[in-house]
Amino acid sequence: METFSHLESEVRSYCRGWPTLFDKARGSHVYDDSGRDYLDFFAGAGSLNYGHNNPRLKAALLDYLSGDSVVHSLDAYTVAKRDFLTTFEEVILKPRGLDYKVQFPGPAGNNAVEAALKLARKITGRETIVSFTNGFHGMTLGALAVTGNSMKRGGAGVPLNHAATMPFDNYMDGKTPDFLWLRSLLEDSGSGLDKPAAVIVETVQGEGGINVASTKWLRGLAELCQEYDILLIVDDIQMGCGRTGPFFSFEEAGIVPDIVTLSKSISGYGLPLALTLFKRELDVWEPGEHNGTFRGFNPAFVTGTVALNAYWRDEVFQKETLAKGDLVGERLGAIADEHAEAGVSTRGRGMARGLVLPNEGEAKQVCAEAFERGLLMETSGPQDEVAKLLPPLTTSVAELEEGLEILAESVRAAVKTPQPA
Amino acid sequence: METFSHLESEVRSYCRGWPTLFDKARGSHVYDDSGRDYLDFFAGAGSLNYGHNNPRLKAALLDYLSGDSVVHSLDAYTVAKRDFLTTFEEVILKPRGLDYKVQFPGPAGNNAVEAALKLARKITGRETIVSFTNGFHGMTLGALAVTGNSMKRGGAGVPLNHAATMPFDNYMDGKTPDFLWLRSLLEDSGSGLDKPAAVIVETVQGEGGINVASTKWLRGLAELCQEYDILLIVDDIQMGCGRTGPFFSFEEAGIVPDIVTLSKSISGYGLPLALTLFKRELDVWEPGEHNGTFRGFNPAFVTGTVALNAYWRDEVFQKETLAKGDLVGERLGAIADEHAEAGVSTRGRGMARGLVLPNEGEAKQVCAEAFERGLLMETSGPQDEVAKLLPPLTTSVAELEEGLEILAESVRAAVKTPQPA
Amino acid sequence: METFSHLESEVRSYCRGWPTLFDKARGSHVYDDSGRDYLDFFAGAGSLNYGHNNPRLKAALLDYLSGDSVVHSLDAYTVAKRDFLTTFEEVILKPRGLDYKVQFPGPAGNNAVEAALKLARKITGRETIVSFTNGFHGMTLGALAVTGNSMKRGGAGVPLNHAATMPFDNYMDGKTPDFLWLRSLLEDSGSGLDKPAAVIVETVQGEGGINVASTKWLRGLAELCQEYDILLIVDDIQMGCGRTGPFFSFEEAGIVPDIVTLSKSISGYGLPLALTLFKRELDVWEPGEHNGTFRGFNPAFVTGTVALNAYWRDEVFQKETLAKGDLVGERLGAIADEHAEAGVSTRGRGMARGLVLPNEGEAKQVCAEAFERGLLMETSGPQDEVAKLLPPLTTSVAELEEGLEILAESVRAAVKTPQPA
Amino acid sequence: METFSHLESEVRSYCRGWPTLFDKARGSHVYDDSGRDYLDFFAGAGSLNYGHNNPRLKAALLDYLSGDSVVHSLDAYTVAKRDFLTTFEEVILKPRGLDYKVQFPGPAGNNAVEAALKLARKITGRETIVSFTNGFHGMTLGALAVTGNSMKRGGAGVPLNHAATMPFDNYMDGKTPDFLWLRSLLEDSGSGLDKPAAVIVETVQGEGGINVASTKWLRGLAELCQEYDILLIVDDIQMGCGRTGPFFSFEEAGIVPDIVTLSKSISGYGLPLALTLFKRELDVWEPGEHNGTFRGFNPAFVTGTVALNAYWRDEVFQKETLAKGDLVGERLGAIADEHAEAGVSTRGRGMARGLVLPNEGEAKQVCAEAFERGLLMETSGPQDEVAKLLPPLTTSVAELEEGLEILAESVRAAVKTPQPA
Repeated sequence: METFSHLESEVRSYCRGWPTLFDKARGSHVYDDSGRDYLDFFAGAGSLNYGHNNPRLKAALLDYLSGDSVVHSLDAYTVAKRDFLTTFEEVILKPRGLDYKVQFPGPAGNNAVEAALKLARKITGRETIVSFTNGFHGMTLGALAVTGNSMKRGGAGVPLNHAATMPFDNYMDGKTPDFLWLRSLLEDSGSGLDKPAAVIVETVQGEGGINVASTKWLRGLAELCQEYDILLIVDDIQMGCGRTGPFFSFEEAGIVPDIVTLSKSISGYGLPLALTLFKRELDVWEPGEHNGTFRGFNPAFVTGTVALNAYWRDEVFQKETLAKGDLVGERLGAIADEHAEAGVSTRGRGMARGLVLPNEGEAKQVCAEAFERGLLMETSGPQDEVAKLLPPLTTSVAELEEGLEILAESVRAAVKTPQPA
Repeated sequence: METFSHLESEVRSYCRGWPTLFDKARGSHVYDDSGRDYLDFFAGAGSLNYGHNNPRLKAALLDYLSGDSVVHSLDAYTVAKRDFLTTFEEVILKPRGLDYKVQFPGPAGNNAVEAALKLARKITGRETIVSFTNGFHGMTLGALAVTGNSMKRGGAGVPLNHAATMPFDNYMDGKTPDFLWLRSLLEDSGSGLDKPAAVIVETVQGEGGINVASTKWLRGLAELCQEYDILLIVDDIQMGCGRTGPFFSFEEAGIVPDIVTLSKSISGYGLPLALTLFKRELDVWEPGEHNGTFRGFNPAFVTGTVALNAYWRDEVFQKETLAKGDLVGERLGAIADEHAEAGVSTRGRGMARGLVLPNEGEAKQVCAEAFERGLLMETSGPQDEVAKLLPPLTTSVAELEEGLEILAESVRAAVKTPQPA
Repeated sequence: METFSHLESEVRSYCRGWPTLFDKARGSHVYDDSGRDYLDFFAGAGSLNYGHNNPRLKAALLDYLSGDSVVHSLDAYTVAKRDFLTTFEEVILKPRGLDYKVQFPGPAGNNAVEAALKLARKITGRETIVSFTNGFHGMTLGALAVTGNSMKRGGAGVPLNHAATMPFDNYMDGKTPDFLWLRSLLEDSGSGLDKPAAVIVETVQGEGGINVASTKWLRGLAELCQEYDILLIVDDIQMGCGRTGPFFSFEEAGIVPDIVTLSKSISGYGLPLALTLFKRELDVWEPGEHNGTFRGFNPAFVTGTVALNAYWRDEVFQKETLAKGDLVGERLGAIADEHAEAGVSTRGRGMARGLVLPNEGEAKQVCAEAFERGLLMETSGPQDEVAKLLPPLTTSVAELEEGLEILAESVRAAVKTPQPA
Repeated sequence: METFSHLESEVRSYCRGWPTLFDKARGSHVYDDSGRDYLDFFAGAGSLNYGHNNPRLKAALLDYLSGDSVVHSLDAYTVAKRDFLTTFEEVILKPRGLDYKVQFPGPAGNNAVEAALKLARKITGRETIVSFTNGFHGMTLGALAVTGNSMKRGGAGVPLNHAATMPFDNYMDGKTPDFLWLRSLLEDSGSGLDKPAAVIVETVQGEGGINVASTKWLRGLAELCQEYDILLIVDDIQMGCGRTGPFFSFEEAGIVPDIVTLSKSISGYGLPLALTLFKRELDVWEPGEHNGTFRGFNPAFVTGTVALNAYWRDEVFQKETLAKGDLVGERLGAIADEHAEAGVSTRGRGMARGLVLPNEGEAKQVCAEAFERGLLMETSGPQDEVAKLLPPLTTSVAELEEGLEILAESVRAAVKTPQPA
């Protein structure tokens, strides 16, 4: 452990809540070097929707690598990329009636966001991007400017501009009509808001505290964008690839974003890969206008293709996810009820769930207690007030129940429920 | 091929010069799906210094993956990361007397650059970064602001600020003293240049046209930075990991940058990995102040560790690289001499080499002719006027000679040498 | 008239609504070169609160100039400046318990705003300024960034940054609690609003359409600023110097801004002069850190001093203004009632009044009809939907009644009141 | 004097070097309240080219004001403005073959600069403005971004962007060819300099230290701008209106700027007035797109018109200025020769002259000694190393000789000429 404090920057973070040395992993389990088994309900912050070292993906990956298939090829044409693209079109795009083109903007989610913002600005000739309170889109300067978290913004070292923050669904007092403020600004030529190039939104804000946008709100946003000729970007990096049930988290709302970002679970195996999707007519990029070294390396295409074939050719997986999500939601509801006097409540959709512990430090304490008991979780929200659950979607019902039982115990240990006098 | 034009964004670029479907790769060879063999003298733009599917790295990678070792773990502590860090310290840092801390800022070079710039600004409380003509540092907004290429800058869609461009070594007329302009600006409180946080520089500008900074110039720059209390960032993403001979390209100049970025060949296998290194006392990051999903995935640590052990425990590899570089330089010199009347000349250091073809379109034509003859190369420079060679460092002398022979033929086919009257 | 179209830039504006050649002016009357008499209910957009060529000020000015007293002296010490400062302290600051220091930031209101914003940023080390919908603060880049009007913002030619627009009083649906949005943003560390240096506000938005902030709203804003350690800047350029009754427009609300800007009527004679006032402890300027050529020229100090002595040593003038304001408000109300079916309504406070004509073009037509009938007025508001009245405060009751009668006729001529079927 | 330290902001500056209370002024003389007579060789930083209270201008001004002619009229058409415009065309523009349109952008030089920059950006659709080392253009955010002085830039409180600083004539080592750097940047698509909207330049940098651009350099700059389709803005605020001899300081170089700014002495009487001139075809402003309250008040038009008629209808005044300038230059040369061992030298053109005293504090001390002896001067240059002379152009030869004699004594008192051993 000293190795890390000696050699790795103080910026490291997740490791601080999980002070052990991980070694092996299978499905929803991670094992440390002493062999201790942890149930992983964080799944690489949503990067392992199909579990650790998923055997079907693993087989294909080993086969690919063993046979000296090309690993790195910049953005040259490869068999692996072709197969990924055709599968993505056949399994994902076509059945959903989406005529998107695919950009491989770099290996990380922030690359997908940066490309989306650049493209939106290039298309419209405008600079401002509307983002939402507690949105999270990445740490590079363009993505950071549309990210809400003040600590992370402070790391920029320069003012973050060309962005305007708006209230996410249900942000204010629950009485203010949706988009009253944004619509006023857009309608009023004296409002001081320069006409935006685009809106960027998460349907469920993961880092922001599992804040769920209603379908009504999402539809309203899509209509507003269309009415005012503003591009709609859905950042589906954390909530896409089935996290909320359907492949894209926006499907339930019946909207069609102009631009979509994907990353995290798109390779299915934890390999860095990111996609920026956009409507065909928006493909105004010049060749090489946005480039980079790792814009799709082939092993990630291979595992990504297998994942699409394995989980998305029919509706079974999606339905299972929704059922598991209901189960998790129900159990969390019971935990919240047990601690209602401490103000505990729940949030979430599909397999993205959160337990809100409003008293300072309690959510962190819950996660620490859970770690002690062999369960990996993290906090989120601006005050770290939400214990966040993102189990692999392939987690079995038995594992879910086991983990939720640990969580229930952890909450009991951490939350000081007011005692009757 | 229609798959790509139908589904992939117009932004794709390298594929346009290499219109075939790649499938397999070994060492310095890539094979397309018809089995045709190409000598790869581009090596993933410097990401494959140890060749494609290097057998020693491959064995370790397959072993790691087969055994269900953890692949994705955010920035948790893992055995693979520990091994990488201790090896990096033992093999690279200690022998060179470098007391750097290591940040894993994300999977791509641009993440390493963004983290470097953010840290420099945070440490100094200043905003301006000095960059150099024809520098290339990445496509995300922070990195793009210090990148010279106007086409790529134009993709930003917003003005790129907080940066000041300065002449790279030997940029002007060959008579102007080094740093005359930058020193004047720094000395003069009325110059209009706000005191910079940092200078970011490549020792050899790869994308910019294989422009080589002399050791004298680099030393002058380091002294200037120290004199004016400005941080020196060396972007060693393309020229590090042995491309110019030594592990770090700045070793030859005997300078110690405050911050160093690495990526491309650091995993050794084409897997996305990036490092930002900085002097221990500069590690002022708050935990989580710069985060992200893919900040070091374990298979990349595994292959990176093997590469360090295999190639950097003694000086053999470095010496071989220098010798091969001399050979390439010599042969390029001969080609240039053959076409002296067409103004052809050479540039380069170590195994980063370029053939300058000043007439419009000739360098592109050379690369096209080479592709026809089974050799992969690319152009670089602001006018695409440089045919660029970045062969794997593991390329054998015989392969080098074969490739250079193809190149010689390609130049003969492409360059219209003025005929005697 | 051809002189102007031939030689003066197309940017000229007020002259377009008043197509005649003005020559002489006395009190509330202006005369064109044919001798035609106009009642001036615009008063230099609030620069002539004491009327044109006010005889008491004129006498002092002529006396000063005749005697070869110093006119221009940069910011040297002069008798005229000393007298202005001591009078300003004695007549304005002391009786109101204000311990402000005075900066002469340049001759125009925009200079006062620029100095205020610079000082607020320097004091706090923060960049963001909160401004309000339909606020107007000037055309220089710093002031323009906090101005709402999109046409004027578009003239910047660069993105306008470091500002965040918030809803002015009663902007939205009349139901949303005051500052619900701003308070949410400030309380929430994930909101995406970087902590502001200052808030800049007009108590009555003149250019924005005579939007009146209630005392309750202003107090709430002052409390919010104090609570969150944000500086409160009141831009009193148009509404100060008695326009709303008291010398400062914020007196009624009982608040004490940290910084106040004054210009327009502060010289009392239409001479360019501007002041930035700030609490003594905020005077952190370095000598010369903000400089300029015309930071208080002496004739303006002379007339300004006389105006303070003539109108502000007791409460008579203020009371008269309020009474006249009531009279104007009442008559406008009657006009609005007459055209209720056309949606006409009124706004205003003191002698800053507006008639809202919601149908497109009607307010402009009213002003054109008024001009035809010998009354000068202008439109304001984002859609030019408000006919704006800023008569000199010294306008007699008879003149007010005369002008309002003309206005009533003009409205009748311009507004197509729906006819009963 | 306590009045000022008690009530006026610490930002006040000129008054600090001239600690007395000024009262009266005539021609080149200013008198304090004790009746002490000072020769004024600073002339309101070039605002009083025709002397204090010039009798011909004074007569017209008193006449105008006495007759209740309109003083303030926003940008309405007035007799005074018409007369100014027609006189300006007849006396200044036509004889020089200039087909400029005139904008009244506000009362101060910074307004003229802000309007020039906005217009240049609007016309070109580009953001970057090229400015020069030690240039000075004003304190508002747009103008400050193209101003070199670091102390003044630091007052902005936000990063100053969209500008690139270039070496002024003779800035570097005297060997570097003119525009080598700027031309390289413009020619090279990889230079990192975004194509500029405009260049802004002073022909003689007044605040920057009386740095004189040669006619060759100015012509080279004009040619470069034309070649690369960049607008050329000459900021003639301090050096125009005859300061260097001809009305415009750029006439000698035979260049025709696209945009010109004028202020300071354009009213001739120290009254705030500013002009932005531009080629007819560049008048793309929308009506009201740049507005403001004090864009030309009529008394300033009146004195400005008289000044044009009095001094610019023939070449007498210009020739006298050049002769006086030669005289001042000669005497300064003699002073410099006397103190050659202390490194004293001279700079200047026409009646803009400087004595360079390279040892720290000496120039300030010279000005202090001069004040003691009844001569008003100021320092300039980035280190306040230049004692600057801007006498009224109407100063008689006898007065010039008197002042220069005082200066010679002051230099003797202040400069510690190294003594022979």
